[in-house]
Amino acid sequence: MSANVPTDICFSFAGLMRRGGQTGPHSDGWGIAFYEGKGCRTFHDPEPSARSEIAAFLRRHAIKSCTVISHIRRANRGRVALENTHPFTRELWGRIWCFAHNGQLRGIKRRRLSHYRPVGTTDSEHAFCWMLDQLRARWRNQPSDAALERAVGEMAQDLAGLGVFNLLLSDGRTLFCHCSTKLAWLTRRAPFGPATLVDEDLTVDFARETTPDDVVTVVATRPLTRDERWEVLSPGAFIAFRSGDPVARRAAPLPPAQGLQRRAA
Amino acid sequence: MSANVPTDICFSFAGLMRRGGQTGPHSDGWGIAFYEGKGCRTFHDPEPSARSEIAAFLRRHAIKSCTVISHIRRANRGRVALENTHPFTRELWGRIWCFAHNGQLRGIKRRRLSHYRPVGTTDSEHAFCWMLDQLRARWRNQPSDAALERAVGEMAQDLAGLGVFNLLLSDGRTLFCHCSTKLAWLTRRAPFGPATLVDEDLTVDFARETTPDDVVTVVATRPLTRDERWEVLSPGAFIAFRSGDPVARRAAPLPPAQGLQRRAA
Repeated sequence: MSANVPTDICFSFAGLMRRGGQTGPHSDGWGIAFYEGKGCRTFHDPEPSARSEIAAFLRRHAIKSCTVISHIRRANRGRVALENTHPFTRELWGRIWCFAHNGQLRGIKRRRLSHYRPVGTTDSEHAFCWMLDQLRARWRNQPSDAALERAVGEMAQDLAGLGVFNLLLSDGRTLFCHCSTKLAWLTRRAPFGPATLVDEDLTVDFARETTPDDVVTVVATRPLTRDERWEVLSPGAFIAFRSGDPVARRAAPLPPAQGLQRRAA
Repeated sequence: MSANVPTDICFSFAGLMRRGGQTGPHSDGWGIAFYEGKGCRTFHDPEPSARSEIAAFLRRHAIKSCTVISHIRRANRGRVALENTHPFTRELWGRIWCFAHNGQLRGIKRRRLSHYRPVGTTDSEHAFCWMLDQLRARWRNQPSDAALERAVGEMAQDLAGLGVFNLLLSDGRTLFCHCSTKLAWLTRRAPFGPATLVDEDLTVDFARETTPDDVVTVVATRPLTRDERWEVLSPGAFIAFRSGDPVARRAAPLPPAQGLQRRAA
């Protein structure tokens, strides 16, 4: 989520958490990071989110934030353990960065790391450390927004070449999103209307929950609601949000020549 | 807390949290970090712990861990904000390090940092970043336990020269403790008996909660129970625990000659 005012994510969270072992197969842990100013609260649990006591608490206890990243895990690389549970966090340039990944990356562990080291054993955390290493090597201090957006977009495209890399990444200010195979988003703004979850029989009337100036963008691998218009990103697309608004986007890159030839054969 | 088996800290936590705005003046936020293997769960709240909903949840929801660091804050440097709330965490050598500090350090921000940068504005987080910077500059990979204990002990004594530095620091395996003005500890082991909190009318009979092999050490600036024998450390003392047992300790260093002269005057 990226929003221009501190917003609670209880509604979307309710739907996502059901996918963790109930309406979906992602039952190997879950996590969520809420930015609050420069600070960040994270909650992680290797238990399935649909049965997690901490998740139940967070559904009731509305934490308001402008930037939230959440993840439910289906383990493929790295055992089910707290240290392998997304989102991962590290500090760079005096800001906390959060990273969540859907997919698998072949051979990522052959990319050498210098500054950041994984704590767990997932390919995802290795990719995160590699990305921050690249940024740190290139800039001693935070660069311009445009330079950072371009660099993250290029790295995401590079990593997607190793497999599947649906990405959510943030420094608390910008939410960077890369679609490798599936990612969809929508922005809620005035006039607000009702929305109904795909995964649970739950409807919220956002007109009653918001003010006319609110801008709230939600990004997910699969749309969370059934009665709103989600924009489904194309494979290879990259988009960045600040305060709920898209600030940079790149349409899907053209498939490489080799791929086209294979399709013609 | 340092223990040889995953242990819930609900009892000690109940007492500590009361000090955050009820039986004590430390009402500017609180935090707790639970290690679980190489992973670490942290909970932070800039609200007073005595009124915090997350704290109330954690009192009921027993998270078991071998190493826990918790802190209640009375702000002196740095405003009340999530990013200024201890314990602070960073990754070094592929492990998560946690840091909590009681006291103030004059001029700490003049110590230059290279790798780690504070996210918030406290003197404490600056000191933490400086300590990890020193360790990283000295060893590319994790050194021997003895070398690490010595290095942390020396740095703590150095920092204590800038003011008050009661320290809890851990990499999830070892709990490093430095007493600048106040720190006390006790180890619970068989035969276990009852214990009553200083801050709340709550008694636990540990004989009913433990197995005969459990070794559980609790360290706090002030004893948490009224009917157990706490060892109060002397100013300048350093002690490290692993699996609940002391593995290194240094008695208080002799006061400098100047100090003795002043006392004689």
